[in-house]
Amino acid sequence: MKSDAKAEVGQTESLEKGSVLKEILEANQKFIQQFQPVKLSHHPRKKIAVVTCMDTRLVDFLEPAMGLKRGDAKIIKNAGNTVPAEVIRSLAAAIYSLGVKEVLVVGHTHCGMAHVDEQKLANSMRENGISEEVIAGLNLKEWIGAISDEESNVKEMVKEIKASPVIPSQVPVHGLIIDIETGMLRVVA
Amino acid sequence: MKSDAKAEVGQTESLEKGSVLKEILEANQKFIQQFQPVKLSHHPRKKIAVVTCMDTRLVDFLEPAMGLKRGDAKIIKNAGNTVPAEVIRSLAAAIYSLGVKEVLVVGHTHCGMAHVDEQKLANSMRENGISEEVIAGLNLKEWIGAISDEESNVKEMVKEIKASPVIPSQVPVHGLIIDIETGMLRVVA
Repeated sequence: MKSDAKAEVGQTESLEKGSVLKEILEANQKFIQQFQPVKLSHHPRKKIAVVTCMDTRLVDFLEPAMGLKRGDAKIIKNAGNTVPAEVIRSLAAAIYSLGVKEVLVVGHTHCGMAHVDEQKLANSMRENGISEEVIAGLNLKEWIGAISDEESNVKEMVKEIKASPVIPSQVPVHGLIIDIETGMLRVVA
Repeated sequence: MKSDAKAEVGQTESLEKGSVLKEILEANQKFIQQFQPVKLSHHPRKKIAVVTCMDTRLVDFLEPAMGLKRGDAKIIKNAGNTVPAEVIRSLAAAIYSLGVKEVLVVGHTHCGMAHVDEQKLANSMRENGISEEVIAGLNLKEWIGAISDEESNVKEMVKEIKASPVIPSQVPVHGLIIDIETGMLRVVA
């Protein structure tokens, strides 16, 4: 089949680059051999959406720390759990099409987005071959979505979601911070 | 302490609404009692970022299906693994500040964003009290981020990320689809 042939070509090209893809596909082979296929609803059982950060330390940590299992919640993640307009789009889809009735914004301690150093960022872009013209054309802190501190950011996000004309006023929106070392949740909004 | 007092107020208010928050905080108490605090780097061990969907069926499923553990990868999630500009912002933070050297866009079969019914969406917004004026002011399919089909969407996202002037040309960007029932990964770009 044409699409399968294409997939194989893509796969081979990637493997030649010595990428992590090979390792991931091997892990996947093992996973599917032991996994019992199951059909779940795409409507989350707990009728909640969680907005959180892309941080690697939250992977396989935030969900167990919240008691959430497969099928329980929609999870939205970006750098610094910020950018209200885009988060609101995903929340709207979750609320209007997928039965979500409650929203939790969960920031975390020691978030990289609260410690953005503009000069270091520019240098790293230069080292990676990004042109001076492109760098100069950006307000780096704003563009990358730097936040002042984790707690204020969560409070601001909760406020913006609640104030949105496309989010129903009856949907509760909570703000929490998770301690990235202990897993303890604290309600802040 | 003032901030703790505030947190308690917020918590009590939420509990009165009969929200899921109480259940989550109880689960968290149990979690922190058995969890051994550990200090991890925010630089992902496998130097990868994964862009995927907020779907509830991917929770505690995508990561094990890819062999990814806590500390391995940055994970970005939104409705339909789409909206290039916002994803690129998070990827830039991951690449320039957190050591990411490879990107995987992972769509999934049976994605809700590939089956957006404009009329149903408008009706659901009405039932939730959103005004006709607000609804009429939106191009609903575009606003919600509807996609035509899962595979084309992944290919398009890979193309846009690769073409971005702020993403280094040497960073490999792969596109995959995960079967939401079996967990099988397929390389499509």
